[in-house]
Amino acid sequence: VVHTTVVGAQGYLGRAILRTLWRHPDVTDVTAVSRALRGQPVRTVVAGAPRAALFSAPDDAAALAADVVFLAVPAGAAAERVAAHEAAGAQLVIDLSRDHRHAGLASADGWQYAMPDVLPAERGAKRIANPGCYPTAAMLALAPALRGGAVGSGPIIVDGKSGVSGAGQSPRADLHFPEANESVRAYKVLGHDHTSEMAEVAGILNGHAHAVRFTPHLVPQTRGLLCTVYAPLADPNADPAAVRALYEAAYAASPFVDVVVEADTGRVRGAHTAEVAVDCDPDTGLLVARGAIDNLARGGGSAAVANMNGARGFALGAGLDFFGGNT
Amino acid sequence: VVHTTVVGAQGYLGRAILRTLWRHPDVTDVTAVSRALRGQPVRTVVAGAPRAALFSAPDDAAALAADVVFLAVPAGAAAERVAAHEAAGAQLVIDLSRDHRHAGLASADGWQYAMPDVLPAERGAKRIANPGCYPTAAMLALAPALRGGAVGSGPIIVDGKSGVSGAGQSPRADLHFPEANESVRAYKVLGHDHTSEMAEVAGILNGHAHAVRFTPHLVPQTRGLLCTVYAPLADPNADPAAVRALYEAAYAASPFVDVVVEADTGRVRGAHTAEVAVDCDPDTGLLVARGAIDNLARGGGSAAVANMNGARGFALGAGLDFFGGNT
Amino acid sequence: VVHTTVVGAQGYLGRAILRTLWRHPDVTDVTAVSRALRGQPVRTVVAGAPRAALFSAPDDAAALAADVVFLAVPAGAAAERVAAHEAAGAQLVIDLSRDHRHAGLASADGWQYAMPDVLPAERGAKRIANPGCYPTAAMLALAPALRGGAVGSGPIIVDGKSGVSGAGQSPRADLHFPEANESVRAYKVLGHDHTSEMAEVAGILNGHAHAVRFTPHLVPQTRGLLCTVYAPLADPNADPAAVRALYEAAYAASPFVDVVVEADTGRVRGAHTAEVAVDCDPDTGLLVARGAIDNLARGGGSAAVANMNGARGFALGAGLDFFGGNT
Amino acid sequence: VVHTTVVGAQGYLGRAILRTLWRHPDVTDVTAVSRALRGQPVRTVVAGAPRAALFSAPDDAAALAADVVFLAVPAGAAAERVAAHEAAGAQLVIDLSRDHRHAGLASADGWQYAMPDVLPAERGAKRIANPGCYPTAAMLALAPALRGGAVGSGPIIVDGKSGVSGAGQSPRADLHFPEANESVRAYKVLGHDHTSEMAEVAGILNGHAHAVRFTPHLVPQTRGLLCTVYAPLADPNADPAAVRALYEAAYAASPFVDVVVEADTGRVRGAHTAEVAVDCDPDTGLLVARGAIDNLARGGGSAAVANMNGARGFALGAGLDFFGGNT
Repeated sequence: VVHTTVVGAQGYLGRAILRTLWRHPDVTDVTAVSRALRGQPVRTVVAGAPRAALFSAPDDAAALAADVVFLAVPAGAAAERVAAHEAAGAQLVIDLSRDHRHAGLASADGWQYAMPDVLPAERGAKRIANPGCYPTAAMLALAPALRGGAVGSGPIIVDGKSGVSGAGQSPRADLHFPEANESVRAYKVLGHDHTSEMAEVAGILNGHAHAVRFTPHLVPQTRGLLCTVYAPLADPNADPAAVRALYEAAYAASPFVDVVVEADTGRVRGAHTAEVAVDCDPDTGLLVARGAIDNLARGGGSAAVANMNGARGFALGAGLDFFGGNT
Repeated sequence: VVHTTVVGAQGYLGRAILRTLWRHPDVTDVTAVSRALRGQPVRTVVAGAPRAALFSAPDDAAALAADVVFLAVPAGAAAERVAAHEAAGAQLVIDLSRDHRHAGLASADGWQYAMPDVLPAERGAKRIANPGCYPTAAMLALAPALRGGAVGSGPIIVDGKSGVSGAGQSPRADLHFPEANESVRAYKVLGHDHTSEMAEVAGILNGHAHAVRFTPHLVPQTRGLLCTVYAPLADPNADPAAVRALYEAAYAASPFVDVVVEADTGRVRGAHTAEVAVDCDPDTGLLVARGAIDNLARGGGSAAVANMNGARGFALGAGLDFFGGNT
Repeated sequence: VVHTTVVGAQGYLGRAILRTLWRHPDVTDVTAVSRALRGQPVRTVVAGAPRAALFSAPDDAAALAADVVFLAVPAGAAAERVAAHEAAGAQLVIDLSRDHRHAGLASADGWQYAMPDVLPAERGAKRIANPGCYPTAAMLALAPALRGGAVGSGPIIVDGKSGVSGAGQSPRADLHFPEANESVRAYKVLGHDHTSEMAEVAGILNGHAHAVRFTPHLVPQTRGLLCTVYAPLADPNADPAAVRALYEAAYAASPFVDVVVEADTGRVRGAHTAEVAVDCDPDTGLLVARGAIDNLARGGGSAAVANMNGARGFALGAGLDFFGGNT
Repeated sequence: VVHTTVVGAQGYLGRAILRTLWRHPDVTDVTAVSRALRGQPVRTVVAGAPRAALFSAPDDAAALAADVVFLAVPAGAAAERVAAHEAAGAQLVIDLSRDHRHAGLASADGWQYAMPDVLPAERGAKRIANPGCYPTAAMLALAPALRGGAVGSGPIIVDGKSGVSGAGQSPRADLHFPEANESVRAYKVLGHDHTSEMAEVAGILNGHAHAVRFTPHLVPQTRGLLCTVYAPLADPNADPAAVRALYEAAYAASPFVDVVVEADTGRVRGAHTAEVAVDCDPDTGLLVARGAIDNLARGGGSAAVANMNGARGFALGAGLDFFGGNT
C-alpha cells in the first residue's frame, strides 16, 4: 500500500502529477489537496478523472496519511507542508517549488536535488527537490557534452522559450490571451533563479564552474519548452559525429530521451519524453544543443513521479506509460 | 492473445488508436501499418512509443495476422483492406472512414454503425463503421433530448467548430499556418457528408425523420470540436430543469460523458471523455445543446477502441484510462 | 478645425479609434483620454503613435475642447461623460458601449443607433449609439435578404464566434492564455444583450418582428468575429442566384463590404471592410449567411469613425484608407 | 508622377509593400504583378484594396512603365526581372530576395545594401538590396553598441524566433497548422544565409570582423520576429545605464525605433516600428540585446519603402504613417 498526496493539485503541475499517479501500478491511494476547491470533484479540472475523487483540504486525515507527498505549491509555501507531512509519517516529500533547490544539491538538511536521466534520485531519499523546467531542458541538452569532456571553459548561454502555462495559473495582464497571443518576448533577463540552478548542475557534471547566461522567453503556446544552449567546445574543431555519439551513448539506456536531428516541443506535448539535438558550429567553436520538453509533464509532474520511482525503488517508468504528441 | 493492426497508423487518427492500444490490457500485439514509413520507428511520430515498434507494410505477415483491424485510411481506400484482412482471418474490422457509413446503420453487408454512449456496438459485431467526428459531438449533445421526447418536429441545425487536425495531415494552402491562424470560416456549407449521417442517427433516436442543416467551421486550434445544436422543443415552454434531468439520467451510467454548465474543447483535449451542456430558449422555443470532444480521440480513435471493447466483450473502458485537459 | 477626444483610449476599442483619427484628413486634433495612464505616451500602447501624444485625464481642458467625442468606456460609465462633454460644447457624442442602444433606435432623448452600410448615421446627428460587434456581423450578413423580402417569418438563429479581444482588456481566469488557447466554448447562452439589439434591427429592416436566438462563442484568436446566421427563406426553394444577387446589389455601392464565396476573419483582420457570404439550403428551407469582421475595427472603432463621417458630412471613407489581412 | 511596380505582389511581402504604396503621397501609380493571379482583383488577397486594382503579368506595359520596382520574388528569380525593368527605364530596383545581398554591401555591380536606421539608402541609389528579416532585428538590437565601442572581440550569438509567415506562402508539411501550432523548434542550425549577412553588417558597424553564430527558430504565431543577441562587452563591467544611453542617442532621431524595457513582437505587429531592449550581464560580461519587428512589415515591405524614400529623396516616413499593435 502506497498512499500519495498531491498538494496544490488544482494547479497545472498538480494535475500533471495526478494524471500519472492514477495509473501508477505501485500507488494505491491518491489524495488531491486544494484548499480552494475542497469537496469538489477533481473531474471538474481534469477530464476523465475518477468520478469519486474529490479535492481535500491540506490537513484532512486522508491528505496527512500519505507515504509520499508532492508539493506543487508556490515558492515559500512548501516549508510548512513539509513539517506537517513529515510529522504525520511521510516517507518521502518531493518539492516542486524552488524553495529547496537553493539549499544545494545535497544539502545538510537532507534535500537531494534530483533530475531524471541526469542526476537520478537516490534509493531511499526522503526529501527531493524537483528541478526547474528550464534547467531540465537545458541540462538534458548539455549533460552528455559536459560529462564527455566536450565542453571547454567559458560561459554557457541558455536561451529558453516556454509556453505560457509555465507562468502558472493566475491571470495576469501580460498573460491575458490577446496580449500573449502573437507575442514573443524575453522576461526576467537578469536574475532568474534558474540561472544559478543551471550553473550548479553544470558544475557537478563538468567538474568545474561555469558562468551561465540564461534568458527566458514566453512564446504563444500553452505547453512546451525549448532551450537552445550555446557552450564553448573544448576542441573548436570537434568532430560533430563524435559529439553526437556522446549523446547517443548517454541516452541509449533511457526510455525517456530521444536524440534527434531537431528537437520539437510539438512532438513531446503531453509526454514524459524529451528530445535532444546537437550540432557543432565550426565558425565560432560553439556547441549548439537543443532540448525540448513538455514543461508541465517532463518539466515538472512526470519528473516528480520518476524521482519517486527512483527513491522508492519502483520501476523507472512506472506510471509513465503514456504517449505524447500534439497530433 | 488479441492481435490488432492499425492501417494508416502514421495519420492523426491512426496515432490516436495506437496510443490507446499500447496500454489496452486485452491487446497483446499492435501492428502499425504505414506504406510510406515502412521500417521506420513509430516513435518518430509518437513520442514515448515503444522503441521496438516499427511501421509495417499493409501486406506484411504481422499486419495480416490481426484479429482486430482498424482502418484509418482515406475515404475510398477501405474496401480493399477489408477484403485482405477478412480473408486472412480477422474477426473484426473497424472502418474509421465514411465508406461504410453510407451503407446504412445496419446494412445488408454486415456493417454496423456504432457510436459509444449513443448507439453502442453489438457484442459479436464483425464489421463496424465508426462515426464521424461532427456527428459524434452533435448526437452526444442531442441524444437524450431526442430519446426523451423533448424534441419536436422540424429541422435540426448543427453549427460545428473543428480544430484543424480534423482536416487531416496533408498540407493545403488554406491550412498553412499563416492562413489558418487567426481565421474562422465555414466550409462545405452545402453537401457535407456528415449531414445525412446526423439525420440518420437522429431518426433512429427520435423515431421520425429530421432534416438537418449542418454548417462546419474551422477554428484556429489543433484539436477539439464543438457542435452547437439547435432543435425545436416539443414543448416550447419546456422546463429547463426537466430537460437537463434527461441528460443527467442518460449519461449517469457512462464514465465517458459529463453534463456540465458549458462544454469546452480545452477541457477535453486529449480525452476520451465528452462534455455536454444544454439550455432551453423560451423566446424561440429552441433547445440549445453543445457537445465538446477531442476530434482525434473521442471523435475517432478512442471511439474505435470503445467499439472494439463492445464488440469483443472487453471492459467498456479498457485502454481508455487516460486523462485529458489542455493544461 | 475638428477636435476629437477618445475616452477609454487605452482600451482595445479606444486604440482602434485613435489609429483611424490620426490620419483622418478632416480631424485636426486628437486627445486620448485614459485616467490610469494620464501623462504617459500613447506610444507605449500603440506602436508608431505620434511621439508627442500623451494620455490626458477626462476633465483636462484638451479633452473637453472636443467637437466630437468617442466613448469607449464600460457599460454604465458613459452617461456622466456625455453630460460633461455636451456641457463643454461637443457637437457629436458617439457611445460605443451598450448604454444607449437600449434607448431604442431613434429615441426620445436623441440617441440614434447607426450601423454603417445597414443603418447609416444621419447628417447632423448629435448623439450616436454605435452598434455591437455581433449585431454588426450578423446584420451585414442578413440585411440584404431582410430588405429584399427573402426572409419569411420565424426565428432567426445567430451563431457567433469571436476572438478573445472582444471580451476586453481585463485579465480573467477563463481568458488566461493557457485556458483560452485550444478552447472553443459558448458563453452567456441565455440573455446576451446583443440578442434584442439584433431583433430590433431585423425588425426595422424586414418590417415585422423576429425572435432571435443568439449564441456567442469564444474562439482562440485575438481578433476577428464571424456570425453564421440561419433564417427561414420566404420561399424554401428560392433560387440561390437570385438571393445572391440581392447581396451584390445591396453592397455594390459600398467600398466596405465584399460579397464572397466564403467569409474569413483572417482576411479582414485589421480591416474596416467586412466579408459576407450567403447560401440557401434546400433541405431545410433556410438561408445560411455568414458575416466576417474585425471585432475591434469594423466591429467597433472603424464603425464609430464611419458614423462620425456620416453625421459630420465628411467623405464616407475618410480616415478609413487602410488595408487588412492577417498576412 | 512616380510609377511603382511590385513583382510577386500576391505574396506576403508583396502585399506588405502594396499596403504602403497605396497611401504613399509621392506615388501616383501602383502596379501589382502576379503571374498566377493575372487579371484578378488584388482585393481578393488584400482586404480593402482599391476595387479597380487587378494583378498584371510581369511583362504587361503597366508593369514595365515603373520608375521604381520592388522585387518580392524567390531567391534566384530576381536577375531576369532586373534586366527587363532597367531596360524599360526603371530608375530604382529594390530586391527583397537574398540574391544581391551576397554581392557585398557596396558592390561593383552597383547594388547597395540598405537597412533603415542602421545603414540608410543613399540618395540616388539605383539598385538596392533589401536586408533580411533576422539581420534587421539583430542589427537594430546591436548597432548602437557596435558603433559606440561597447562590443569587444569574440563571437556574436543571435538566437532568432520568427513567426511562420517568415517561411513564405507555400504549404509545407512542417508548416501545416496542426504541425506548427504548439511547436517551437530550431531550423537550419548550420549554414543559414543570414549568418554571413549579419557578420558583414557587424563588421561595417564595428570596424572589425565578428564570427556570428545564428540559430533561427519557428514559433507558433503568424507575424513577428524577435532576435536575442549575445555579444561580448568591451568592458565586462560596463555601466548598464551608459550602454543604454548609447541606444537612446542612436535612435533619438528615428521615428521608427523605440528603446524599451522589453521588446515584444505583439506590440509591433503590423508596424513599421521596431522595439529594442538592452541589458548587461555582469556574470558573463555579455551584452544581451533584443530586437522585435514585424517580419513582413519592418522586416521586409516597410523597409523597402523606407529605402525607396531615402533613394528618391521622399520624406523618410512617407507612406509609413500607420500604426501597429496586436490589439
